[in-house]
Amino acid sequence: MKRIRLTIAYDGTDYAGFQVQPGLKTIEGELNRALSELTGTRTAVIGASRTDSGVHALGNAAVFDYDGPIPPDRFAPAMLPYLPDDIRIVRSEEVPADWHPRHVSCEKTYCYTYSFGPVENPLTRRYQSFLRRKPDVRAMREAAAYLIGEHDFTSFANPSSQVLLAGGSAVRTITDIRVVEEAVAGIGPDSGAVRIYVSGTGFLYNMVRIIAGTLLQAGTGLWTPERVQEALEARDRTKAGPTAEARGLTLIRIHYHES
Amino acid sequence: MKRIRLTIAYDGTDYAGFQVQPGLKTIEGELNRALSELTGTRTAVIGASRTDSGVHALGNAAVFDYDGPIPPDRFAPAMLPYLPDDIRIVRSEEVPADWHPRHVSCEKTYCYTYSFGPVENPLTRRYQSFLRRKPDVRAMREAAAYLIGEHDFTSFANPSSQVLLAGGSAVRTITDIRVVEEAVAGIGPDSGAVRIYVSGTGFLYNMVRIIAGTLLQAGTGLWTPERVQEALEARDRTKAGPTAEARGLTLIRIHYHES
Repeated sequence: MKRIRLTIAYDGTDYAGFQVQPGLKTIEGELNRALSELTGTRTAVIGASRTDSGVHALGNAAVFDYDGPIPPDRFAPAMLPYLPDDIRIVRSEEVPADWHPRHVSCEKTYCYTYSFGPVENPLTRRYQSFLRRKPDVRAMREAAAYLIGEHDFTSFANPSSQVLLAGGSAVRTITDIRVVEEAVAGIGPDSGAVRIYVSGTGFLYNMVRIIAGTLLQAGTGLWTPERVQEALEARDRTKAGPTAEARGLTLIRIHYHES
Repeated sequence: MKRIRLTIAYDGTDYAGFQVQPGLKTIEGELNRALSELTGTRTAVIGASRTDSGVHALGNAAVFDYDGPIPPDRFAPAMLPYLPDDIRIVRSEEVPADWHPRHVSCEKTYCYTYSFGPVENPLTRRYQSFLRRKPDVRAMREAAAYLIGEHDFTSFANPSSQVLLAGGSAVRTITDIRVVEEAVAGIGPDSGAVRIYVSGTGFLYNMVRIIAGTLLQAGTGLWTPERVQEALEARDRTKAGPTAEARGLTLIRIHYHES
């Protein structure tokens, strides 16, 4: 028996999230079905990041155990005929038999994208959250700086987080936040996108979307950047900004340190 | 009665093209329905570019005649509640009563996008045509240079073109072709996109897709760049390359000279 790790890309628009839910179309459900059909054996993956409904990924990960003739690095082409066109395997490889994608130290990078302009671009609507005006990128960068480092992120977590409800710690480390402007041609003047890249060694439920929603409070001038620090220190979800829409979020990559 | 020009953006993936066809979902059909519902009067637009099924636009144009209280520049917000989220009005304005979007001189700019990499990016699959390997951009530029200027583009037109079947001229002017490389983060190494921007004062049926398919012949090394000139001079559709997939094509803008 070998343990195989898949690196997975998907457009989450038409899915009820990563995690299997009875009667709903999920990424995990599609992976399980595709692997079971390909291998002829009922197979279930263990996912790294259980992204929400509408959230996308270019580099989520999942493992499964396999005993058969397909070489570990050949699952990307082998699974292709069994997958819908909004899910793709980027890469596959063997990992140690006890390797678990959620019990191993890693750094994850997410990208949250706001588009802005006089009208929403229909070609980016599935992947970007839309604003009528360009936010103040400098204020967003200033606000973001308060969140980098090891902090108690209670204010930036959905209170229904299973980890928090079970009494777990809300301390997490954000290693970097970059706020990047991007020009977009063609959909009228004053159009573009602002991308927020957030990297960290662990995230609470909805944390990146609440960070994105809170940085936008600074970006629109509703909040001073300093208020983001106050929100963090309050350890109270009601003190941070709103949860930004799912469609703007993409899990870009998971970097596993030891393998 | 006023004539109003709309600038229109759409994701063409789920449409049978621009032009109304009985029983099919079309961009023109949606615009007619939205305007009829908004104004309470049966309204039909005249489109500038009748894009094919699966082709996108950021700046197509259409006009309609209107006699009512909505100011000419307010149709973008006014139509919003009546449009599906894959069609957006970028701008609206009054034009002279006899102004016709296909009988007026203009310059159109299209963008054809190939993505490349070890696996297709599910987040760009609706808008880009996928290649396993990066094409040779320099060869594509060299090949493109032969097409710039005024030429007989018979080799680069679908022979079922109504203009050609009616004995019309295949002489058109391409004012510019730019081939631009673009890095794409996140979907494995050696991934990216090549965009072909084609501008001209008029295009034959499928012309941009045949140009894209032919430049790719040079980009993959199957053809020398010089063979594109031979294909042009042959005035024979069978001498040019294949018609590239619709999904990679976007009509970026139409620049009308006199208004």
